Formats: sequence, C-alpha cells, structure tokens
Amino acid sequence: MTFSRADAVALDERSPLRGRRDLFALPDGVVYLDGNSLGALPRSVAPRMQQVVAGEWGDGLISSWNTADWVGLWRRVAARIAPLIGVSGSDVHVGDSTTVTLFKTITAAARLRPGRRVVVLEPTTFPTDGYVADGVARTLGLELRWCDPADPAASLDEDVALLALTHVDFRSGAMYDMAALTAAAHDVGALVQWDLCHSTGAVPVSLVEADADVAVGCTYKYLNGGPGSPAFSWVHPRHQEVWDQPITGWFGHARPFDMERTFTPADGITRMASGTPPVLALSALDAAVEVFDGVRVDVLREASLSLTDLFIALVDERLGSVFEVITPRTRERRGSQVSLRHDEAYGVVQALVERGVIGDFRTSDVARFGFAPLYVTHADVFDAVEHLVQVMTHGEHLRSAYAVRNAVT
Amino acid sequence: MTFSRADAVALDERSPLRGRRDLFALPDGVVYLDGNSLGALPRSVAPRMQQVVAGEWGDGLISSWNTADWVGLWRRVAARIAPLIGVSGSDVHVGDSTTVTLFKTITAAARLRPGRRVVVLEPTTFPTDGYVADGVARTLGLELRWCDPADPAASLDEDVALLALTHVDFRSGAMYDMAALTAAAHDVGALVQWDLCHSTGAVPVSLVEADADVAVGCTYKYLNGGPGSPAFSWVHPRHQEVWDQPITGWFGHARPFDMERTFTPADGITRMASGTPPVLALSALDAAVEVFDGVRVDVLREASLSLTDLFIALVDERLGSVFEVITPRTRERRGSQVSLRHDEAYGVVQALVERGVIGDFRTSDVARFGFAPLYVTHADVFDAVEHLVQVMTHGEHLRSAYAVRNAVT
Repeated sequence: MTFSRADAVALDERSPLRGRRDLFALPDGVVYLDGNSLGALPRSVAPRMQQVVAGEWGDGLISSWNTADWVGLWRRVAARIAPLIGVSGSDVHVGDSTTVTLFKTITAAARLRPGRRVVVLEPTTFPTDGYVADGVARTLGLELRWCDPADPAASLDEDVALLALTHVDFRSGAMYDMAALTAAAHDVGALVQWDLCHSTGAVPVSLVEADADVAVGCTYKYLNGGPGSPAFSWVHPRHQEVWDQPITGWFGHARPFDMERTFTPADGITRMASGTPPVLALSALDAAVEVFDGVRVDVLREASLSLTDLFIALVDERLGSVFEVITPRTRERRGSQVSLRHDEAYGVVQALVERGVIGDFRTSDVARFGFAPLYVTHADVFDAVEHLVQVMTHGEHLRSAYAVRNAVT
Repeated sequence: MTFSRADAVALDERSPLRGRRDLFALPDGVVYLDGNSLGALPRSVAPRMQQVVAGEWGDGLISSWNTADWVGLWRRVAARIAPLIGVSGSDVHVGDSTTVTLFKTITAAARLRPGRRVVVLEPTTFPTDGYVADGVARTLGLELRWCDPADPAASLDEDVALLALTHVDFRSGAMYDMAALTAAAHDVGALVQWDLCHSTGAVPVSLVEADADVAVGCTYKYLNGGPGSPAFSWVHPRHQEVWDQPITGWFGHARPFDMERTFTPADGITRMASGTPPVLALSALDAAVEVFDGVRVDVLREASLSLTDLFIALVDERLGSVFEVITPRTRERRGSQVSLRHDEAYGVVQALVERGVIGDFRTSDVARFGFAPLYVTHADVFDAVEHLVQVMTHGEHLRSAYAVRNAVT
C-alpha cells in the first residue's frame, strides 16, 4: 500500500464535514485522539460562558431565572441532543452526573418490574455502571447478574427486570446491536437500558426505532460539553407516566413554585429532574452542542468509519506484528475508537503524548484512540500512525518513566 | 428616630467589611437583597472561567485532570467552605445538587440506625427537603413525621432514626439552636442532619462544637457560587468509616483508576463522591468563595445583624402599621434575612423591583429580603426602606400586573 499523507489530505478535502474542525479551539501541533474521554473545546463555549457569567448572572441576577429562561435551559439542551439519539427532545432530561442519572434510571426501571429481582450487566462495562447498579441493588434488594459480553441474551430469563448494557464498550470500542438485544430482552418481559456514553455524537443511535426503554449518556465525550458536564437521560413515552425515580426534588414537581408539602411528579420527562439545574454547566453544554447543527448522523458515522478504517489499515500495514487491534474490524460492530493491545501500552501512550499525539491508556494493556469525526482528520490519523511507528522504532515506549497512571474516562 | 442616610453611610464607613463590596460585580442602581436566593457575582469568577475554559480545557485537554488537578478540585473548594461551618476541610465533600446530596445523606444516616423507621422533619422546611426525604422514605420503607416547628424536640422518641432540620428557615428567616436540638436528638439515640442552605456564609455555624452528625448546604446563596452551583456535605468523622451512601460511583471508589469490578468505598468523606465532578461549576465556586478569605465568621455575623436590625427598626418606624415582621426580633433566633407579611406581598416585591430594589416573594404573602453582609450596605437598607415607603404611599403594589409569579429559592 502506498497511501501517503497527501492521500489523507485529499480525503479531508473531500469530506462533507470539512470546515467543522474550525469550530474547535484545538492547540497547534496536537493530534487529539482522546475526544472519547474529554471532547475538545468548541469555540462557541468561551463567549457563551462570558455572557452567562457577566450578563445573565452578574447583571441579570435572580431575574435571569425568567428573563434568560434558566428554568427551561435543560429543555433547550435536551432538544439539541435528541436528534443525535433518534428521539424527541421532549423525552430527554439533562442535569445530573452520569452516575446519579444511572442511579435514578436503574431504580425507576426496576420498579416497573416489581416481581423481578435481577439486573443483568456485562462485566466489561465501565466500572461505575456496575458500582451504581450495585448501589441500587443493595438499596432495593435486587441481584446483579453478569452476562457473557459476547452473548448478553443468554443471561436473560423471566427473573430479569432490566438488561443494562453499554452500547459502545469504553475499552474495546465494540458496539452492540441495539435493536436485536432490545428485542431479546422484551421477549422475556425485561426492560432495556442503554448507556450511550461512548456513542452519542459519533455513531448512529435510534432509540425509538430500536424500541428501547431507557437510555443515559454522558456529554463530555463526543458532545464536547466540558469536564464533568451533566448527563442526559431518555425514557420511552410509554413509561413516563408511571416512571418513579427516587430522587424527588422541586424541579421534578408538577408545580414547583407553589411550594406544596406533598410531592406530585410533573408530567413526562420533567419528573427526571431533581434539584436546581446547574446553569453554568448547562450553558456551556448548550453552546457546545451547537457544533452539531446541520450535521446528519449518517454523515458523522461515515466520517468516523473512514477514520477508523484508515487507522486500522495503517496500523496493520506498518505495525501489524506489534499491536493487536482489539476493536472489531466489522464496521457494524465498531464504535468511533480503535484500541490496540500491547504489554507496554502505558509507555506507548505516554511516548505518543510527548510527541503531541494524545490518546489514552486503559488498564492493563490497552492504548485507546478516539476519532471524533467533527475535528479529527485523515491527516491526523496518518500523522498519529507515523508517530507510533517512530515510538516503536526508537523504543521510546520503554524509556518513559511516568509517575501518574491516572486518567479520567 | 432621626436616623438619616448619612448615618447609614457612616455605619458603612466604620464597617470592618468595608471594601468587600468592591469584590462583587453588582450592577449600578440596584439594591440587591436577594443574595439568599442567588448570590451576586464575585469579580473573580469571570476571569477564572475564562482560564478554565480556554486554558485548562481548550489547551490542556485531557491532561488537565492531572496538570490542573481537576481530580482534587472538589477538595480545594471543600477546604474553603469548611471554616465557615466550623469543621475540617477533609470532612467536607462538594459536587452534586442539593437535592441529590440530601438523598445520599438521609439514606446513609438512616442506615446507621437500622432498627428505627422514622425521619422527623419540620413542615416549614423548604419543600424539596420534604420531597427528597419522602423519596428516601419510600425507597427504604421509612416513615416521615412532621414536627411542630416551634418545638421539634417534642417529636423525638426512640423510633426516630434522624432529625432533619433546616438551620435557618427559608421563608421566615428564623434560626434554630443547633446545639440544643442536636443534644435533644442524641438523648433519644437519633442522628441529626442540618440543612445549611440559608446559613453558610452569613451566620455562624459550628457543626463540630454542636456535635452534629451530618450537614448539607447549597452554595449559590451566601456563598455566591452561581446559579445551580454544587452543594456541599459534611459528615462527622465518627460516622465516616461506616457511612454507606447509596449512589456508589467511581469517584467514591478507593482505587478509581484501577477499574475494579467490585465497589470498595474510599476512606473518609471521599466516599460521598459519585460520578465525574462538575469541573466548570466547581471552578466558578472555587473562585467565588475566595471573597471570604480573611473574613472572620463573627465579623460577618455582626455585620449581618447590624443590617437586619436597621431594616427592622426602619420598617417599624415608617411602616409599622403596614407590615408584620415575621422574622424573629431576637438576634439569637434570626438568620440573615427579614421577611415581611402583607396580603399584597407579591405586588410589593414587583413594585420594588421596578425601582431597582430586588427582594423576592414567597407564597402566599411574604416579601423576603436577604442581607448578604459582604456586599449589602446600611445605605442599601436605608434606600430599600425609602423605596418601600414610596411604593406603599403611591399604591404601586396595587398597580402592577405581573405575569410570572415564579422565582427560584
């Protein structure tokens, strides 16, 4: 293969997403392949934060709850996210951390199947999904059942209240067939929850079409909402009027400003709300998600696959004997990242970072590279592999002595 | 009484807090008496947000979790809040909404008294405290007992797991004797939780001295953290090693980056953490709380009492037959606000807003005025009462037709 950097640049020039990268404030000289951990900064965020802080908060003070509609801010963010996951914005809530949101949804889903005591999880899920399910299980007297990641449906039976799966695996980048697994769960009368943390904004998600029951997603990865930005949840309309989430607070009340003693849940998805919404964080997210305006999800997907195809092909060609590609080569089963197995994966990632190529390490032996299609280019892919070849050729991954092995997903 | 505006200005000039107001970006021509709902903007926040967004997120990208120590950010904020509530910073967590935090603490506290089924609340508490306690009670099979607000101790017996009180009432501004009620609860073997939303940053709080068990507080009122900023919690060290909060997530794990399947809670207060912390909101709060640097709580308290004393005296003198002061006149029982009862309280508040005096309305007949001692002056108090006299003299409170009666506490 004689694929050259010029070929990569030519692919970028033909991309329908050409120009979108200019919407991001990426530092010079960096190839950023960690948008699946923390999305890059959209240029729209800084001026929006300035306006919200100085204008809405500083000048508008308390009146901004009405004049700037801080009360309805989460609904505007929800409406922007909804088309990326194939649902109506009026069925999406945004506001708490991913962990807190998962606690609410797992509890509420389990309550819809009161005779059933089992929550099925897959063991390769991001650990916090397991921790929070464990917290729910201890609180409600449920039982966790760990399935075979290759065949979650085999763990389903009529004791199962909820099948809780992560759509795209954080470590391998493998993607489940949402519609098929949802159907399998429904066949035994269980509900299905999809964790979309590594999906939303990078791969097509059609929750309504798949007939899913509930979904939760983080917004600081491919949605670029900023570090620790609030999570979203979606609940199928058929469940909303009986949806009973445990953290009942005034923003989920039918009449919050009447200050009634008794809790009456609001209609629809609003009952997912608990406390006063995080206005600064939601404002940053609202500005960030603007970068998706006018972008079709199938275009995003094709751009993402073109990047991961190229990365896999170049690694195979130049480093095929050095790394094992653990991400599925089948397009239908691949998310928007490529993970490489290597005994010295930690050193590899650190040596790349020193060269300005930012991926990340996942214990114990995975180097992970995310391809956010709005700002990663084919030229980035070419350059990243070139640096990777240099690292391995010169043994830079063995030289590095690094103190901190922590990173945030 | 011949107290003049010049007398008010003279009091301000002698105040030990003179100059602190300059740390806030208050709009010209506004008398802001709603800092008990949303604190004013400290000038330190906008540049800090710019730095965090453009520098830490935009340029630092994922590495800022380590290089900017986003992982430890909540601890730095906790250390700033701790002296205001009489505790060690290493016993304070900051991160979720007030409602979510209350859900965690009420659940964990109830679990420390497994044979007991009753949570005592007072019916004048902010409604969401009741909603979230109700959510916990339904989840754990507990029972809520509403006490006489004038005598919460009368509702205590050996069925009580937790007495959950709000230190300063959001509507009346009345303040409980924390030490005495804590002792009364301990006498029957119950734990005590204090909601400090309307206390922290304005009145002295000494949780350790009072021997309290757990406390939760909001940071967007007197702490000026911005709309919807994250809440804090404090757990007495004697409970931390057995503290079992339900929303177990990776930031509360003993070894979050080892990605273990099993949840092992971190030591100490860290186990109150759940998901990835809200970095933008915590950064704003961190900058905001700087305005308290070098301020002694007793100095804050005396300044606050001087303001509320003056407001009450001027209202008595000039409008004594028009308004009923429902806030305790006894200094020891008064928070940092003064509430006036009037049948047309809503119109009164709106007419004042049109004159640039911002207080707020609490259903059904309360006009509420908060006195944040760092930025409210005696001259503000004088001007506010002068405007109030004008409103009532001209009947402006009857003329106003206002569409929106909503406001956020």
